[in-house]
Amino acid sequence: MEQEKLSHMRHTLAHILAQAVLEKYPNARLTLGPAVDNGFYYDIDFGSDKISDEDIKTFQTSMRKNLKKWTAFTHREVSKEEALKEFAGNPYKEELINEISDRGEKITLYTCGEFTDLCRGGHLENPAEEISSDAFKLDRQAGAYWRGDEKNKMLTRIYGLAFETKEKLDEYIHMREEAEKRDHRKLGKELDLFMFSDVVGKGLPLWTEKGATIRRELERFIVDEELRRNYKHVYTPDIAKLDLYRKSGHYPYYKESMYAPIVIDDEEFMLRPMTCPHHFELYLSKPRSYRELPMRIGELAKLYRYEQSGELSGLLRVRGFCLADAHIICKDAAQAGSEVNGALDLIEYVCNVFGLVPGKDFWYRLSLGDRANTEKYYDDPQAWDTAENELRKVLQGRGVHFVEAEQEAAFYGPKIDIQMRDVRGKDNTAFTVQYDFVMPKRFKLNYTDSDGLEKEAIVVHRSSIGAIERVVAFLIEHWGGNMPTWLSPTQVAIAPVNMEKHGAYAEELATKLKAENIRTDYMDDDDSMGKKVRRAKSERIPYTIIIGDKDIEAGTITVQHRSQEQGEQTTLDEFIAKISKEIKERTLG
Amino acid sequence: MEQEKLSHMRHTLAHILAQAVLEKYPNARLTLGPAVDNGFYYDIDFGSDKISDEDIKTFQTSMRKNLKKWTAFTHREVSKEEALKEFAGNPYKEELINEISDRGEKITLYTCGEFTDLCRGGHLENPAEEISSDAFKLDRQAGAYWRGDEKNKMLTRIYGLAFETKEKLDEYIHMREEAEKRDHRKLGKELDLFMFSDVVGKGLPLWTEKGATIRRELERFIVDEELRRNYKHVYTPDIAKLDLYRKSGHYPYYKESMYAPIVIDDEEFMLRPMTCPHHFELYLSKPRSYRELPMRIGELAKLYRYEQSGELSGLLRVRGFCLADAHIICKDAAQAGSEVNGALDLIEYVCNVFGLVPGKDFWYRLSLGDRANTEKYYDDPQAWDTAENELRKVLQGRGVHFVEAEQEAAFYGPKIDIQMRDVRGKDNTAFTVQYDFVMPKRFKLNYTDSDGLEKEAIVVHRSSIGAIERVVAFLIEHWGGNMPTWLSPTQVAIAPVNMEKHGAYAEELATKLKAENIRTDYMDDDDSMGKKVRRAKSERIPYTIIIGDKDIEAGTITVQHRSQEQGEQTTLDEFIAKISKEIKERTLG
Repeated sequence: MEQEKLSHMRHTLAHILAQAVLEKYPNARLTLGPAVDNGFYYDIDFGSDKISDEDIKTFQTSMRKNLKKWTAFTHREVSKEEALKEFAGNPYKEELINEISDRGEKITLYTCGEFTDLCRGGHLENPAEEISSDAFKLDRQAGAYWRGDEKNKMLTRIYGLAFETKEKLDEYIHMREEAEKRDHRKLGKELDLFMFSDVVGKGLPLWTEKGATIRRELERFIVDEELRRNYKHVYTPDIAKLDLYRKSGHYPYYKESMYAPIVIDDEEFMLRPMTCPHHFELYLSKPRSYRELPMRIGELAKLYRYEQSGELSGLLRVRGFCLADAHIICKDAAQAGSEVNGALDLIEYVCNVFGLVPGKDFWYRLSLGDRANTEKYYDDPQAWDTAENELRKVLQGRGVHFVEAEQEAAFYGPKIDIQMRDVRGKDNTAFTVQYDFVMPKRFKLNYTDSDGLEKEAIVVHRSSIGAIERVVAFLIEHWGGNMPTWLSPTQVAIAPVNMEKHGAYAEELATKLKAENIRTDYMDDDDSMGKKVRRAKSERIPYTIIIGDKDIEAGTITVQHRSQEQGEQTTLDEFIAKISKEIKERTLG
Repeated sequence: MEQEKLSHMRHTLAHILAQAVLEKYPNARLTLGPAVDNGFYYDIDFGSDKISDEDIKTFQTSMRKNLKKWTAFTHREVSKEEALKEFAGNPYKEELINEISDRGEKITLYTCGEFTDLCRGGHLENPAEEISSDAFKLDRQAGAYWRGDEKNKMLTRIYGLAFETKEKLDEYIHMREEAEKRDHRKLGKELDLFMFSDVVGKGLPLWTEKGATIRRELERFIVDEELRRNYKHVYTPDIAKLDLYRKSGHYPYYKESMYAPIVIDDEEFMLRPMTCPHHFELYLSKPRSYRELPMRIGELAKLYRYEQSGELSGLLRVRGFCLADAHIICKDAAQAGSEVNGALDLIEYVCNVFGLVPGKDFWYRLSLGDRANTEKYYDDPQAWDTAENELRKVLQGRGVHFVEAEQEAAFYGPKIDIQMRDVRGKDNTAFTVQYDFVMPKRFKLNYTDSDGLEKEAIVVHRSSIGAIERVVAFLIEHWGGNMPTWLSPTQVAIAPVNMEKHGAYAEELATKLKAENIRTDYMDDDDSMGKKVRRAKSERIPYTIIIGDKDIEAGTITVQHRSQEQGEQTTLDEFIAKISKEIKERTLG
């Protein structure tokens, strides 16, 4: 089914829902009922009535029964007066009618299956035939302010799911259930990885010991990998004078995303929203030669960007985050192209470590500017041509499939976006590599070339692993909480069957594992062995070592992986060799 | 010579300087001339005259000559009118006289060697006999606002150095020269470790690749060491709602040191001045049992504290810094004592890695409260007794010498300060371990004890390596820029004698060293070998590998340490084994 038809089907179902509601609650006042990307909803004022789950079931049964009679839509244009008469006593519809009239638009009423609603159209022609009665389902109810404004009355929103077929509906419900189980906010709490505090503030996560371990491992992994690739890692301040962002042009252009200034001794300082101007100041601290280029300046940078409190969501949308950021100062377009390619190599390397497959788990988008829109994009057609061709050549050279997207570039140049689908089925830009020919002008990022002339550089902005907060959220959901051993907060649990008999041996093992830098939880409480193993599994600890009589006799250990039901006997040395290799090589699973 | 007498001597010399100045510049207007901790100065208004180095020499010669006549001080009390008459035409002295009179104090004039000055006294009785003419020296001149207020006129301040004996003066001058050579601001620039940018802001260092390497190594060192000691390392936000600091009581108590709030959606957020309340929020995220205590919550925390722009100094006094901070939640006083002891173990371990010797390079101070001063110190005499006894017992138990300092405690409890002398001969508190019985009350830091009762915890605040910025400044000065190999930004330089003949072999070596994670600078330019070796030494690179014909023939390398004049022949494998051990064991030198 094409997208438009699906949308018409969903909107049609909103009408059918409204009819079912009125059958049971004739005094309910209807407001608006649009299609959304998984179905439809209708916002309804039920007055003092409370809607129960039983009601929702009744509505659904009525909808399926009534659907048979919905064989053809008719519509008619009416005068404002006529419309107001039709919906007398419903202040919401009255408000809508007055607005339509004020805008000079036509007022239309749509009727089908003996039910009439104020509507602009967009339905199926023969719902009874075109809608399969098992391809939709009422989902849930929630509160919603009239027109989304919290100053208005709270209405009841009834959500329905609707797809082309029952199979597609079931598939969606299954994906959603999986996504809910894997939701990083839920798992973050269950696995004690991070928390929020009202008195610290919204969108500002506090990482517990366990979450901090994941974060530290990721940070060291990416810094070490970048150092190996000859990045110069630096530290620059998280605040700077407003002047710096005026110089870069981010202010006032980017003002909406920045927090209010902090006044120190009559000067205004800002929480930085990006690292570029900080790195440029380092570059400018002395004269530079072509021999120093490309110069890859990298930093684990804390950044602060404004998000509305309603937009905040776990670690995915936060107010302060830590970006593995870098700016590569290049001699010219060709060098920039080669550095973009190198950045993509690094990104693919990182994705590979996480087990993400190109083409399947992520894909490329070439985001282009628009020569005609000089307000949104810097006005230099030739520079745009050069830059876009360079990026296109890079992608072609890699032999990867990519889509080109107009109007998706940054102000200062085109970019390559690495797109990923999350567990909710939503596509996001995970990483970006940008080509920038504007900042070098603004900051005078020059160098002396081999011919002795002073020339203007090109800058490549890139991230390798993205924002640590987001990547941790992504990985938690991707793996459903089962982090690979190298990223697991606790790597081994030691569960003696009987503390009195096996405790001393178990403690000795724990000491040995810790000496090998293996994160070990020695379970020295009096819980039963079964309970300890279950606890280790619920904490997603990769390995549990069980110690019983047989082990002490034989000088062995019994190791059970979180994915197994049974343990295997081995020696401590063998186990240490195996797990150390797994950690060092960042093995998945 | 006792301190008071030394101070009298220095103040006397200020009088003698004033006399010498007036001999040459009769119209110069004297203002104030106090003793300072290395001598004395006198602030003088020379009108339109500019003072040259030649003048300074003349003053010094006159002083030495005149000193012989300074055999006895006399003084007399005068009326305000008399005094004003004596200093007619000198607005500075007039201002001082009026102020003394307004305060109802006596106005006294002191005379010696035919020179009279307005003065409160504090001189030697017989300067000619008591001052050795080679134990003082005029040092330099500088501008100074009248009374330190930049709205006032700029005066000329002439500084003199003065000690008991010529030997002590020479010793001081030598120490100061050494300190200047080792000044971390100077070395930081020479060795390209960090920089400041006016447009980023004062007191906000930007760490270059090289400085960042030192910092990263230190950060990983201390985090890994703390993890080994069962600290729970966390990450908490660098900003928080003002409410959090109201809850902790830091605001408004600590307001002077905090920056102005940042407004986000009508809420006020602060750059955090400390980590305590952040860690307490983590502690409070769930109910706690005595089994979880002591809980050592550690963080590399970015903190922001107000410093006046005149107080800022390189990395030593900055506006934002990164503290290796921790808060240890303890069951009771005994556990707190044991944790304080553990924190001192860690601090001594860190000092030992830096080659600092207890008793020589650092020493202990027990900083106590004052039961009578309930405004400065929390009012709970019994808690103070318990806490102070516990800390005293810890120090006694370690068998170390320590001094007790009244009135040096924090508001919330006594502390142990680790004192260090810097290259300037100044004593500073390097690290602090604090005992806190107030925050647990304020934050309700409770736990369920083994008897099932809810009890109040004790908190130990401590740092292990202090603020990263300060410790880097200290270490640069302590080692005069010669960082040990594990902390050196570049660990090995490779200098081929002739690029064409030895370049390929040298590059191969560089690749092998880098693969072993040894930070290597392959000097592939056309400078002479001698120049390359000098460059490596000036950059304080621990080892330079020189590659010539002989090395290629024999398959060896020639290694020269920065402290040596000659290289030694060895093999690459042997060298890698040696330097890897040195890095791993953090060997000094």
